[in-house]
Amino acid sequence: MEFRGIFPALTTPFEADGEVSLSGLKENIGRYNKTGLAGYLVLGSTGESVMLGREEADAVLVAVKETAAPGKLLIAGTGAESTRETIARTKRAAALGYQAALVKTPYYYKPVYCAESYLRHYRAVADASPIPVLLYSVPAFTGVTLETPEILALAEHGNIAGIKDSSGSVQRVGEVVSGAPAKFQVLTGGASVVYPALCVGARGAILALASALPEKFVELYDLVTQGRHEQAKNLQLALASTSKCIVTENGIAGVKYAMDLRGYHGGLPRLPLLPLKEEKKQQIGGLLALRETSDVRV
Amino acid sequence: MEFRGIFPALTTPFEADGEVSLSGLKENIGRYNKTGLAGYLVLGSTGESVMLGREEADAVLVAVKETAAPGKLLIAGTGAESTRETIARTKRAAALGYQAALVKTPYYYKPVYCAESYLRHYRAVADASPIPVLLYSVPAFTGVTLETPEILALAEHGNIAGIKDSSGSVQRVGEVVSGAPAKFQVLTGGASVVYPALCVGARGAILALASALPEKFVELYDLVTQGRHEQAKNLQLALASTSKCIVTENGIAGVKYAMDLRGYHGGLPRLPLLPLKEEKKQQIGGLLALRETSDVRV
Amino acid sequence: MEFRGIFPALTTPFEADGEVSLSGLKENIGRYNKTGLAGYLVLGSTGESVMLGREEADAVLVAVKETAAPGKLLIAGTGAESTRETIARTKRAAALGYQAALVKTPYYYKPVYCAESYLRHYRAVADASPIPVLLYSVPAFTGVTLETPEILALAEHGNIAGIKDSSGSVQRVGEVVSGAPAKFQVLTGGASVVYPALCVGARGAILALASALPEKFVELYDLVTQGRHEQAKNLQLALASTSKCIVTENGIAGVKYAMDLRGYHGGLPRLPLLPLKEEKKQQIGGLLALRETSDVRV
Amino acid sequence: MEFRGIFPALTTPFEADGEVSLSGLKENIGRYNKTGLAGYLVLGSTGESVMLGREEADAVLVAVKETAAPGKLLIAGTGAESTRETIARTKRAAALGYQAALVKTPYYYKPVYCAESYLRHYRAVADASPIPVLLYSVPAFTGVTLETPEILALAEHGNIAGIKDSSGSVQRVGEVVSGAPAKFQVLTGGASVVYPALCVGARGAILALASALPEKFVELYDLVTQGRHEQAKNLQLALASTSKCIVTENGIAGVKYAMDLRGYHGGLPRLPLLPLKEEKKQQIGGLLALRETSDVRV
Repeated sequence: MEFRGIFPALTTPFEADGEVSLSGLKENIGRYNKTGLAGYLVLGSTGESVMLGREEADAVLVAVKETAAPGKLLIAGTGAESTRETIARTKRAAALGYQAALVKTPYYYKPVYCAESYLRHYRAVADASPIPVLLYSVPAFTGVTLETPEILALAEHGNIAGIKDSSGSVQRVGEVVSGAPAKFQVLTGGASVVYPALCVGARGAILALASALPEKFVELYDLVTQGRHEQAKNLQLALASTSKCIVTENGIAGVKYAMDLRGYHGGLPRLPLLPLKEEKKQQIGGLLALRETSDVRV
Repeated sequence: MEFRGIFPALTTPFEADGEVSLSGLKENIGRYNKTGLAGYLVLGSTGESVMLGREEADAVLVAVKETAAPGKLLIAGTGAESTRETIARTKRAAALGYQAALVKTPYYYKPVYCAESYLRHYRAVADASPIPVLLYSVPAFTGVTLETPEILALAEHGNIAGIKDSSGSVQRVGEVVSGAPAKFQVLTGGASVVYPALCVGARGAILALASALPEKFVELYDLVTQGRHEQAKNLQLALASTSKCIVTENGIAGVKYAMDLRGYHGGLPRLPLLPLKEEKKQQIGGLLALRETSDVRV
Repeated sequence: MEFRGIFPALTTPFEADGEVSLSGLKENIGRYNKTGLAGYLVLGSTGESVMLGREEADAVLVAVKETAAPGKLLIAGTGAESTRETIARTKRAAALGYQAALVKTPYYYKPVYCAESYLRHYRAVADASPIPVLLYSVPAFTGVTLETPEILALAEHGNIAGIKDSSGSVQRVGEVVSGAPAKFQVLTGGASVVYPALCVGARGAILALASALPEKFVELYDLVTQGRHEQAKNLQLALASTSKCIVTENGIAGVKYAMDLRGYHGGLPRLPLLPLKEEKKQQIGGLLALRETSDVRV
Repeated sequence: MEFRGIFPALTTPFEADGEVSLSGLKENIGRYNKTGLAGYLVLGSTGESVMLGREEADAVLVAVKETAAPGKLLIAGTGAESTRETIARTKRAAALGYQAALVKTPYYYKPVYCAESYLRHYRAVADASPIPVLLYSVPAFTGVTLETPEILALAEHGNIAGIKDSSGSVQRVGEVVSGAPAKFQVLTGGASVVYPALCVGARGAILALASALPEKFVELYDLVTQGRHEQAKNLQLALASTSKCIVTENGIAGVKYAMDLRGYHGGLPRLPLLPLKEEKKQQIGGLLALRETSDVRV
């Protein structure tokens, strides 16, 4: 299975009463289907998966599966704290037609988790999973970093297909690319380092901001694969500052607001994620207006 | 409501097939009922709450409620990532007869959570809760520390009764004791600092290790309340090294093994928490054997 | 050698032109001589030792030695990054009449320093030193924490007399007290935890704030040694909030300003330590005025 | 002034008795003069500057100046904790013929340093310096990270020519390149990210490992400037694993041993930096032997 290109980490829209908006989600997918996105990540960190109940999560999986265009690769976030629940969620996603599972590291008991804990967890999940597993290292949220030796050990497993590394470390991308078997694929989760990550061998990216600006990241990916380095650099630098303003400073609320401005169903995240303050909205509004009309068109 | 004395953070025993052992849990409670423990914390970090499904959690709450002796104060861990789920769990615990709710900080989206996030979360939960709320700050697991200004702001809320602070900072205990209204009660989660925390004004402690050694911590508490400082110091120092060996180095697996040695239903934690290696078992075994026969009797 | 009681970490006053004010320093010592302080720490972190040239440091050592009253125990901060320079400074301090050396951990190359690095460093210094050595762990400044196993290993050395632990961890104080030989003495560097640290076996404290409020900390120490726990608790809680406002929030500039208000030679620190803003001065002024007249007299 | 290309962060060789070996240093420079290195950084972190006395530092500066070939740009590390000492060292380096000063952030009092502290420090140094100043952010050693807003504010100063960023963050390189005036030049200090950093706009690199493998890094730089991306990627990945084994795992002792193997004067670092264990020597020996004969020739 090839994970080339750009995957948005989908947001989960909510109705005014706080319930999941499956219709909004489907409309978003309908629009994404027309872009060059390689597929969709459902129930990732950006999807507020840790805020959803089990029935809600199932409904989201079903809705995206029903709406996604053929050829869009479907990845489900299935990581839970316990190995048994992670396996259960992974099997469920496979049964619903998902082609790969993205499994974040367990993290709550991090003071006693050691390399062996992660190796056993991922091997048990990969052994039991009907679909390929992607590791997911996202230290900003979990406080846990999958280090290169652990990644390389897991890369040997036949049913572990790659990693989404959201540490932002371009160095680690290179280490894994040079140390892992060719079948093991690295996707970056850092919108600010897509271009340099691709330079050192990443295959693509899974990005929150691609939910609001899918075309821009697809364009960036295409520039790199075409060897147009100078243009890639300029677009990357513009997207990096956009990402900083929207994602780094405002998180999911920022991504959803940028989606609203671009005609998607964004809306508000669940509390305790706070709505954006007016000043932040104006910043993002100004930034996106500027980008639409600028030379680098971001 | 008074939270004086020692509360064990209960473990959740599992059967050999991995299912929750309600009978084991009830037998444990039966023995604890005969001690001087002030009450029980159910579904805390030590209870592997993040490893349990909703039905399992409910069954645990019911089992403890049915078995607890009258007069034992019942606290339920009800913190979830979203405010709405936290409120739902808190109401459920109240409906099942629990007298207080322990609510850990939300933590997954910590890069964008700010003081206001925590204030709004806790106020919304406390407003909606039929029972008093205890804040719960446990940075080792969550990566989030409730700082003194936030604690003092929340201490003003009529339905926020206190805090379990597991940061290990005796300094913060003092700051909160001297800055908060008298009704706001500080419980420490650090087995190694029970005595100094009581010295600066904590009312009691909620402790994992009290699931294995309840009498020792009750004895420590009694020594301090009787002003027997020299004996309290000696018992504290002995318990601190015991706690380091069992809890700090081995986590829940260590606590459960110590429970096994002392005749409780301990057993294994759920994966990815690993079973103890033989060498660790012998260390703990040696330590507890030694303690049973030593002068300070820890 | 006994390190009982309260030692101020002396500040280094500067003239308006930025040169060391030896006369101001001597006048400060003259006043301290009349208090119950157990001795003086010269050239510690609070003394801006990392801001001083070698000749300046020597002049400071000489000035304090000349002025200190008999019976005041004299400790010199002599830690440098290299073992050889630390030994040279320690011998120099001994030659100038200092009775003990406080040696902070090396820290610049912390990514490659390991436990063995610290053990070899301290053993080499202690072997070469004509005077007893105190370990100094100050992670807020150095990013290095001396952990209990290393401390206990070093506590066996005949010329290592104790430790100043500025980590703020009361737990570590207890661990070291219960694990080290009786001759090894623990002094805390945390003004907010003097009382609880003494409760678990510390012998005294070395404190920046004791340069501004020596009598208060001596009083606190005396209350504890007399077993007057309730009064000790109240004074400690008051001093903790004073320390937070002056030392934690403002560092050396805050300590020096508090000294000015109390009639000592405080003055400004060297850049890049910034002078206090007016608002901070008023806060500290209000706090000290309040303390002077309040019941707990802090 | 242009800082294009590769600069080694020079090591300081010592004689068997621990004294600085000026002759060894000069012989090293003699060999480097024949390579494509753009210039030399003297008295950086790799030069054990924090281990050297003032006279030793001066002698090192003089020796390199005397030996460097014309056209090699000479940069002196002059950062000290105090602003006044930093200025003194910078003026001294200028007087000795150095063309630029690399000034690391102050760091000891990091709990009270704020953005304003760094801005005032660097502006005062740049105002007083006869030669252009390069900022130096090296969080692994100092615990301080110069963040993008501070860097961009300082980039406006006429005598601040650029930055050596050793944080390893390729994202920050991009942020600074896109936000700073064109005259402000970014050099990376990360041997593992030279190629991606150049891709997003860095001008060159200052590297410890270039003291042992100067030709390889010059080759990497040339490949990138020639647009030979695939070869650059392969060489970068090989050099990244070499750097991890030598520099990350072993620090200066590793760099010096690699220098020994390649015929330079490496030798031992000063204590508490420990000599390499035999096993590490064999690892590095095996790695360098392998590299010499491999296709990618690293």
